[in-house]
Amino acid sequence: MTAAPRIKGVLSPVVTPFRADLSPDPKRFVAHCKWLLSQNCGLAVFGTNSEANSQSSEERMALLDALVEAKVDTARMMPGTGCCSITETVKLTAHAVKHGCAGVLMLPPFYYKGVPEDGLVRHFSEVIERVGDARLRIYLYHIPPVAVVGITPGLVEKLMKRYPTAIAGMKDSSGDWNNTKTFLDAFAKSGFDVFVGSESFLLAGMRNGGVGTISATANVNPAAIDKLYREWQGADADVQQQQLNVVRDALSKKYVMISALKAAVSIYSGDAEWANVRPPLLALTAEQKTQLAGELKAIGFDMPGLKETYARAA
Amino acid sequence: MTAAPRIKGVLSPVVTPFRADLSPDPKRFVAHCKWLLSQNCGLAVFGTNSEANSQSSEERMALLDALVEAKVDTARMMPGTGCCSITETVKLTAHAVKHGCAGVLMLPPFYYKGVPEDGLVRHFSEVIERVGDARLRIYLYHIPPVAVVGITPGLVEKLMKRYPTAIAGMKDSSGDWNNTKTFLDAFAKSGFDVFVGSESFLLAGMRNGGVGTISATANVNPAAIDKLYREWQGADADVQQQQLNVVRDALSKKYVMISALKAAVSIYSGDAEWANVRPPLLALTAEQKTQLAGELKAIGFDMPGLKETYARAA
Repeated sequence: MTAAPRIKGVLSPVVTPFRADLSPDPKRFVAHCKWLLSQNCGLAVFGTNSEANSQSSEERMALLDALVEAKVDTARMMPGTGCCSITETVKLTAHAVKHGCAGVLMLPPFYYKGVPEDGLVRHFSEVIERVGDARLRIYLYHIPPVAVVGITPGLVEKLMKRYPTAIAGMKDSSGDWNNTKTFLDAFAKSGFDVFVGSESFLLAGMRNGGVGTISATANVNPAAIDKLYREWQGADADVQQQQLNVVRDALSKKYVMISALKAAVSIYSGDAEWANVRPPLLALTAEQKTQLAGELKAIGFDMPGLKETYARAA
Repeated sequence: MTAAPRIKGVLSPVVTPFRADLSPDPKRFVAHCKWLLSQNCGLAVFGTNSEANSQSSEERMALLDALVEAKVDTARMMPGTGCCSITETVKLTAHAVKHGCAGVLMLPPFYYKGVPEDGLVRHFSEVIERVGDARLRIYLYHIPPVAVVGITPGLVEKLMKRYPTAIAGMKDSSGDWNNTKTFLDAFAKSGFDVFVGSESFLLAGMRNGGVGTISATANVNPAAIDKLYREWQGADADVQQQQLNVVRDALSKKYVMISALKAAVSIYSGDAEWANVRPPLLALTAEQKTQLAGELKAIGFDMPGLKETYARAA
C-alpha cells in the first residue's frame, strides 16, 4: 500500500453556518467549502473556529456526509475529531478515515486539567488502536489558550515512536513562536508536519521547516495567505506577511474572532443568516457589524467570487 | 401541579466502573448506587469524579436507563448533563427529566474560555426553553479548577429572574470558601440551594444557609458525611468535621482523587476491575494501591456493608 501524499499548505477551520433555529446548515456549509477550495484553501472542518465543540458528534458527522455527498474532495480535508471521550473521538475519527480524509486534527481530551503525559499517551494510543486503519493520519492540536491541556514534545516523541505512520504532525495554536520553533527543531526533519495556527507566523514557520498554516482568517482571506505560502522565498515575502497581519488585526483586535469571521462572510455574501453563532458565543451587534464592514472596506479587503460561488452551489 | 420537595443532604458524584475493555459496566454501577442509597447518600451520577466527560452521551444515557431498570429511585438522583453543545446538553437533560430525576447538575459549556456572561445566559436559556418541562430543576456547576469557565453571581441573578423555577441551586467546587459564602449570602434566602463541592466545607456551608454537599469522598465515606449533615448543630460537629477531613486527605493529598476513590472501592470490595479508569487518567499503580490500603487501614477507615450490598445486587 503506497501512502497518499501528505496534506500541506493553507487550510481553513471552516466556519459552520447555523440557521435561525441554530441548526447546522449543510447547504451554506458546502457552498463555503467550495469557495475555499476555489481559493486553493484546504478544509480543516470542525476546528475551534468552526464551533465544533458546540455541536454533537451526530451533527458533525452529518455535515461531513453532506460534503461527501456534494462531491467535495476529502483528500483536501482534515476534520477535527478530538473529543473528551475515547468513544466519541474514535467514532468521529473512524468516520473521517472511512471517507478518505487526508488527516484528522485531534484535540487532546480537554476536560481534566493537569493530566499526566502518560495519560495522554494512553488516550491517543487507545484511539489509534481502536480506529485500526493504516490510512489514519493524526495532526495533534495544541491550543492551550482554549483547551488548556496541551501537546508537549515528550508526548510527540513517545507517540511517534509507537505510531510513526499515524502521527503525522501538529497544529500549534499556542500563539508562542518559541514553542512552534521547539517542535520544528525537534521533529520537522523526522517527517512530523508542523502547521502554524495563525498566518501571522506563516513566514517564520516556512523559513524553519513548517508545512503551512491552519488559520481562522483563511475563512475570509484564503487567496492572499496561499500566495505567501507559495511565494515565501520571494523578495516581497515580508511585505506580504505584513499585509496579511493587517487583515487579521482588523478581524481579531476588537472582536471575538469567530463572530467577526461570520459577520465578514455575512457582509460579503449579503446573507444575514451567516452571522449566527451558537451559545455560549454571541454574534456581533448590528452596530459592530456596520463598524467592521467600514473597517474592512477601509483596508481594501474583499472576498472575490464569494457571491458567485454561493449562487452556483445553491 | 405541586412541586416535588427539593433534593438536599449528601450526594455522591458516583464513580463509573469500566470493564477491562474500558466499556461502562451497568451491573457494578447499579450495585454501587444501591450501596450509596443504603448509606443515605444521593446520586449525583455523571459528575467530574464519575469521568462523565470521558463518556459519550449514549453511554451516559444507557447507564441511567440501567439504574431506572434496576428500580433505583430517580427522586434521589441529580445526573450531570452539562456538555459543550446545547444539542447534547438538551438531550441528556430531557432524558433525566423524563426519568423523574430530582434535578440535574449542569456544567457551563467549557470549551471556549473567557466567554461573556450574556453568552452563558444565552446557553442556559436555550437549554431550558428547549427542554421545556416544568419539572426541570437545574443546579449550576461551578468548578473553575477543571472547567475553567465558571458560574458568576451575575449569571445566577439573570437566570433566576428569567427562570425562577428551573434554576434551583448550584454546586460550588471552587475550593474557595469566600466564593461559596458570596453565593450563600446573595441567594440562599431566595430558595437557591447551595451545595458545597467538598465535605471539608460541609459544616461551614450548613452554618451559613447551605443545603448539603456533593462530594467525591461520599463515594467511599457516605455515612460519616451524612452524620455530620444531620448533626451539624450538635456539640461534636467540629470534631466530626475534623474526622471527615482526615479521610479526605488520605485519598486526595498524594493521589489523583478519582483513581484513589476507585482503588478504595476496589480494595474494600475485593474486586480488581473497580480500579479501572478511562484515559486520560491513569489507575494507581499496584504499589500505590497497596500503600493506600495501608494508609486507610491506619486511620481506621471502612466501607461497611459494601461487599454484602454488591453480592445482593449481583
